[in-house]
Amino acid sequence: DPKLKIFALNSNKPLAEKIAEAVGVKLGKTSVDRFSDGEIRINIEESIRGDQVYIIQSTSAPVNDNLMELLIMIDALRRASAQTINVVIPYYGYARQDRKARSREPITAKLVADMIEKAGATRIIALDLHAAQIQGFFDIPMDHLMGAPLLADYFIEHQLDEDAVVVSPDHGGVTRARKLAEFLKAPIAIIDKRRPRANVAEVMNIIGEVKGKRCIMIDDMIDTAGTITLGAQALMDAGAKEVYASCTHPVLSGPAIERIANSPIKQLIVTDSINLPEEKKIDKITQISVGPLIGEAIRLIHENKPVSPLFNNRFS
Amino acid sequence: DPKLKIFALNSNKPLAEKIAEAVGVKLGKTSVDRFSDGEIRINIEESIRGDQVYIIQSTSAPVNDNLMELLIMIDALRRASAQTINVVIPYYGYARQDRKARSREPITAKLVADMIEKAGATRIIALDLHAAQIQGFFDIPMDHLMGAPLLADYFIEHQLDEDAVVVSPDHGGVTRARKLAEFLKAPIAIIDKRRPRANVAEVMNIIGEVKGKRCIMIDDMIDTAGTITLGAQALMDAGAKEVYASCTHPVLSGPAIERIANSPIKQLIVTDSINLPEEKKIDKITQISVGPLIGEAIRLIHENKPVSPLFNNRFS
Ligand SMILES: Nc1ncnc2c1ncn2[C@@H]1O[C@H](COP(=O)(O)O)[C@@H](O)[C@H]1O
Ligand SMILES: Nc1ncnc2c1ncn2[C@@H]1O[C@H](COP(=O)(O)O)[C@@H](O)[C@H]1O
Repeated sequence: DPKLKIFALNSNKPLAEKIAEAVGVKLGKTSVDRFSDGEIRINIEESIRGDQVYIIQSTSAPVNDNLMELLIMIDALRRASAQTINVVIPYYGYARQDRKARSREPITAKLVADMIEKAGATRIIALDLHAAQIQGFFDIPMDHLMGAPLLADYFIEHQLDEDAVVVSPDHGGVTRARKLAEFLKAPIAIIDKRRPRANVAEVMNIIGEVKGKRCIMIDDMIDTAGTITLGAQALMDAGAKEVYASCTHPVLSGPAIERIANSPIKQLIVTDSINLPEEKKIDKITQISVGPLIGEAIRLIHENKPVSPLFNNRFS
Repeated sequence: DPKLKIFALNSNKPLAEKIAEAVGVKLGKTSVDRFSDGEIRINIEESIRGDQVYIIQSTSAPVNDNLMELLIMIDALRRASAQTINVVIPYYGYARQDRKARSREPITAKLVADMIEKAGATRIIALDLHAAQIQGFFDIPMDHLMGAPLLADYFIEHQLDEDAVVVSPDHGGVTRARKLAEFLKAPIAIIDKRRPRANVAEVMNIIGEVKGKRCIMIDDMIDTAGTITLGAQALMDAGAKEVYASCTHPVLSGPAIERIANSPIKQLIVTDSINLPEEKKIDKITQISVGPLIGEAIRLIHENKPVSPLFNNRFS
């Protein structure tokens, strides 16, 4: 019987520990460090011949280092005769470069998919991809998990779904807001940014009823936090009672933490798809773990069972 | 007629300038920088449709960033309809991970080759690969240039070939030493490190005549400089008159600069395959440019002429 083994690379060891715990195995023994010149050195310290191996790695910052760790690990596992190489990517970096928006742009999200597949991955497990189309960039099987049910759980447990309206911070995110709204049995609203003329400040136009309501904003990722904090202010200006924000992937680069701290957002609920360094763990940010969700998905996959009931059972 | 265009990425712009000058073209307009979260943003600012494009990029430190810049640039050029994508890699990072020396090791040099090819490169121009076998990791044409003739030129011009013996710092580098010795019409010697018993210091055994001679050590790369500086001391202890050292690739990581400064090495001659930051440009290190050599190779390739005469004519 092929063994199930889980290996953690360096991007998100706390999450990998939680996943292994949920699956009921210990993390595989490996060391992933650097040679003197900065090249990655990987040492797999136990046999994996014939095993079903899962690698946990988010390609968050430093994205290029984390991606190369992943590719080199896949190469080593393939050459060491792993039976399957299942790559769990809780946060998929370069996902926003998923199309040519201008001439001569790369499509880095596809390049990354090609690299992972060429290195030898046999399956991908991803979470809230920036665009669902990225599934089509892979020719190997992919399980696409979603964080919205977990975020919904949090809001329901804390009775924040009462009197709530789910708000999409832009018109690109309405489908995502619709999903959370279904879970919360709440209506939706949309912040519709519009530039009346070139070189004139954007106007925040709110479509839907927010006055006196608890607004719950949702996005797939929050990067510099400009959109979400400006949106929160617009909602308050429009008479919202209070504003919560949530996202699956807390990228939180550049001015993000300062902007969130200074914004009217009461609480930001995120997952641990990206490991937050200590200085980003401010009181206003609550992290809920996708470890049990991913662990359960791995168990189902290992038993050759479908992963979709994970979501259907929960809100049926 | 397809145009010849040369683009520089960020690893070694000074060398790219010299190459473009040697070819007689201006560098193509492009910007290669970062988004707020550290992801690479590439903007090719001129049409390259139907052109023959050359990219200049060493995968030196930070190796993962430089490699990803290269891959993303290849992707963008391919999607922008370049006719050919010729990748000039003066220093090929991860070259030492070219075989499984232990169980479960990756072969990262092959992984990198696969990535470059999958991204869409149509030809590789490399310089003194750590192992010539890396040529076989590619299925596309490769031109493999050598730095030894340039290093030889330097020693001859400075009359350092008189009374010289070329020394290989280990038994793995004898073929390389033999080549330089031919150019200099000098004999060779070999430093043969040997550990008499486990946990006992290595002995430096010198094979060949060095007493009263000018020793010229040669290697393909100098990384932490342990081998070359210990070797230089052993040569002095054995009665050498003076010791010069040379290599194609000045990796110079960790304690390298301090070791070289404190060693009996009189002068270290290197090429500019890797761009040295100011703090590594010490008096003892002389950098000679491979720009004219690579420029000439590009000219020959563009005219569909063989590159090999570059080396044969020179020392016939
Ligand atoms: N790491 C990044 N940070 C900010 N913007 C990005 C990043 N990667 C790609 N983009 C840009 O974001 C846009 C796509 O974002 P979206 O419309 O949200 O899918 C494209 O115009 C990309 O050029
Ligand atoms: N960046 C690096 N720095 C130091 N050693 C390395 C590096 N990459 C690979 N190696 C090791 O160097 C050995 C090969 O070096 P060589 O015998 O000179 O070809 C292998 O055992 C590798 O594990």
